[in-house]
Amino acid sequence: MPATLARTRPEPAVLSAAIAELHAAFGNRAVTSQAVREQHAHTLTWIPNQPPDVVVFVESTEDCVAVMRIASRHGVPVIPFGTGSSLEGHVNAPYGGISVDTSAMKAIVAVHAEDLDVVVEPGVTRKQLNEHLRDMGLFFPIDPGADASIGGMAATRASGTNAVRYGTMKDNVIALEVVLPSGEVIETARRAKKTSAGYDLTRLFVGSEGTLGIVTKITLKLHGIPEAISAATCSFPSVKDAADATIVAIQTGIPVARIELLDEVQVRAVNAYSKLSLPEKPLLLLEFHGTEAGVAEQVERFRAIGDDYGADDFQWAARAEDRSRLWQARHDAYWAALAIRPGWKGQSSDVCVPLSRLAECIDATKKDIEENGLIAPIVGHVGDGNFHVLPLMDENDPGSVERCKAFMGRIVERALAMEGTCTGEHGVGQGKMKYLAAEHGDAALALMASLKRAVDPAGIMNPGKMVG
Amino acid sequence: MPATLARTRPEPAVLSAAIAELHAAFGNRAVTSQAVREQHAHTLTWIPNQPPDVVVFVESTEDCVAVMRIASRHGVPVIPFGTGSSLEGHVNAPYGGISVDTSAMKAIVAVHAEDLDVVVEPGVTRKQLNEHLRDMGLFFPIDPGADASIGGMAATRASGTNAVRYGTMKDNVIALEVVLPSGEVIETARRAKKTSAGYDLTRLFVGSEGTLGIVTKITLKLHGIPEAISAATCSFPSVKDAADATIVAIQTGIPVARIELLDEVQVRAVNAYSKLSLPEKPLLLLEFHGTEAGVAEQVERFRAIGDDYGADDFQWAARAEDRSRLWQARHDAYWAALAIRPGWKGQSSDVCVPLSRLAECIDATKKDIEENGLIAPIVGHVGDGNFHVLPLMDENDPGSVERCKAFMGRIVERALAMEGTCTGEHGVGQGKMKYLAAEHGDAALALMASLKRAVDPAGIMNPGKMVG
Repeated sequence: MPATLARTRPEPAVLSAAIAELHAAFGNRAVTSQAVREQHAHTLTWIPNQPPDVVVFVESTEDCVAVMRIASRHGVPVIPFGTGSSLEGHVNAPYGGISVDTSAMKAIVAVHAEDLDVVVEPGVTRKQLNEHLRDMGLFFPIDPGADASIGGMAATRASGTNAVRYGTMKDNVIALEVVLPSGEVIETARRAKKTSAGYDLTRLFVGSEGTLGIVTKITLKLHGIPEAISAATCSFPSVKDAADATIVAIQTGIPVARIELLDEVQVRAVNAYSKLSLPEKPLLLLEFHGTEAGVAEQVERFRAIGDDYGADDFQWAARAEDRSRLWQARHDAYWAALAIRPGWKGQSSDVCVPLSRLAECIDATKKDIEENGLIAPIVGHVGDGNFHVLPLMDENDPGSVERCKAFMGRIVERALAMEGTCTGEHGVGQGKMKYLAAEHGDAALALMASLKRAVDPAGIMNPGKMVG
Repeated sequence: MPATLARTRPEPAVLSAAIAELHAAFGNRAVTSQAVREQHAHTLTWIPNQPPDVVVFVESTEDCVAVMRIASRHGVPVIPFGTGSSLEGHVNAPYGGISVDTSAMKAIVAVHAEDLDVVVEPGVTRKQLNEHLRDMGLFFPIDPGADASIGGMAATRASGTNAVRYGTMKDNVIALEVVLPSGEVIETARRAKKTSAGYDLTRLFVGSEGTLGIVTKITLKLHGIPEAISAATCSFPSVKDAADATIVAIQTGIPVARIELLDEVQVRAVNAYSKLSLPEKPLLLLEFHGTEAGVAEQVERFRAIGDDYGADDFQWAARAEDRSRLWQARHDAYWAALAIRPGWKGQSSDVCVPLSRLAECIDATKKDIEENGLIAPIVGHVGDGNFHVLPLMDENDPGSVERCKAFMGRIVERALAMEGTCTGEHGVGQGKMKYLAAEHGDAALALMASLKRAVDPAGIMNPGKMVG
């Protein structure tokens, strides 16, 4: 049983025939211009751009079925596209093919406020969804930073700042409508809160990175907007102190909604980028959700823990506008980091380790950064044991490129040695395929490849990603 | 692509050869006595007993690998066995084969208190696990009623009374060690709290009912024992009032840990069975977990909702022994129901519908019971939209059998029409296979069958269950 599915580009004649059929079916919604094709391949980070041969702007499930039937008949690759904010080359087309742009599928199909769920099309973004829900007193908590599409977030099993309390996409997707490579349309589950009726198709497709089908509808869990929200920032003498305070807060069961770490390098970058004057020490940003009394109690309990680890410069905010100000440092982190060296590129790692190993893992990583003279700010969803390091590299200097790539490999190696994973939330895409054998072992990886073949025997869905 | 995997019993000569090898490898841990074989097939509910040909009492992952290699070489079915408490014939052997009794695999391999997780062998029962954890201030919340094995609970995607707050096995299994039909051993994930590294193998095996492999280790999420726990019972004028109060409590975000309904028929049965004197009206049993102040606040808020729906006879208990007394009615429910007609058998349905449809679904079911003159008490995990009806039938009266089976079909039909599922927590086994096409549609069911074939091409794992 080979672990990889071999692929080559379709023959030019085959491709032309497929594109002609797409033009006939979709008219000017099937686009082959160089600029549009490049926009629909990877445009962030240092992974090279590999454009598809054609982009189809779909508007419905039926459109996706039509694309899939054409692609399947000709054996041409299909690459689902949301907003293009993925970081690991998921939307690249290493074997050419059809990019299926779902960004026009933006309908919020049904809000079931009584059941705390919503049905959306894949092109709906998380900000659009939360705007729509606000007046109903509801919200969708998953926040990966970028205003990603819900389809893309399901595809990468996204999470982000709120996951420590509300879970990841794995926990918040109730059901999916999916167009299979055969062109058949399935629903993975019903709208009930739980079920034991067969294999968990929903979780098979969540995190499958477009390699098994096109997601055309998503049913999501919602939450009531908390009665009270309070945010805080505080500084610590060292990254280890901040991580240790986080560990104790989680272990003692404080239901913190967000707990984010910025190391001193990242704080300096944010001060420069956003014209702030935060103390240039490791910083925790926190948010507490609950009733008025419940939030007050959480704040009190966290404060006591912070004191034990030398926290100071506490700032608190309960009003929405003040919270936004405190969170500005976090929201600007990615662009602030890139601004340290204008013109250089970054690649964000996202390892996740058991909480008990977090302080040790971050500490060792900081030593590695120093010893190798890298510029690599750290931002972490530390309540989950998940953190990002963004090494910056000068693409014109082969030595710089080499050092950064080697460093990325060591971060993953270190996390795996601590029972962690190479990716907590960004997904595998092209960038992390090389780590999967070490993480899962050959037998589990072969099992993944056999699942892929069972769903997509011709290998047309997003080839060259994840299991290859 | 056929949706079913055809099976027949192995030829007698093949079976003899396999059993001889098992005897050689396991000595007196491979047992063929009639009594032991019957104990290892289905013994509860009205599904007939279909014994395996041999029972192997395994003690390690290596034992499971050895059984699997023998079974695989001879093409003999393998049926994993935990405590035998499943309700849908999961442990039956319709095509004969080898029952793999994991009850001696009872090691609690590692408690990672700092990470709030534990690694256990599949024969560990939930009571054993909680006894072990108590002194560390930790607990494992999933409680399906029976003292089931953790392996069996993972296999059926079990849940129960605490799921409304803590989720189901889907949410509480972090990783599994599995012996595949090939004899290879895989780990489905690492111990980190979240990951986006490939297909979600953990969730593929959770709920797979022994049809894909033998689970030999389970890593579970743990929770801190709450600082405060308070339990309550209260009575309502009607089942609809109780269900409506539940819906409002959930919708307004009270983080209730348990909210269970007993209808008046069930309350009467419990009064008779357990010599209690509860008001013979629909009853809610509740439990609240949190800090002292948090629990007090939850209680206050629930009380206000209860008042709106005519709740009375409130009884509260914060001490462990008083809580046990209040919960006695719930814990005795199954046996109390069976005691209504000694000698008759029951079969518990477990449909689950969106919360907004719950009151309507229970109401229609009660009318159905009355119109058809059935004895069928109702007990529900109503916070999840999940409820059990246990129609009693006289196996010596074909009319009684017929009426009960037809009623079970109507319950499922009604739930499916309300976007619900045929099984919220018991699983499919043999008993609910007939409902899967209506619930999932042919294409999704065919996809499940193709996943099954990908993992178990020879179809040796628990044949005749779930996808057939």
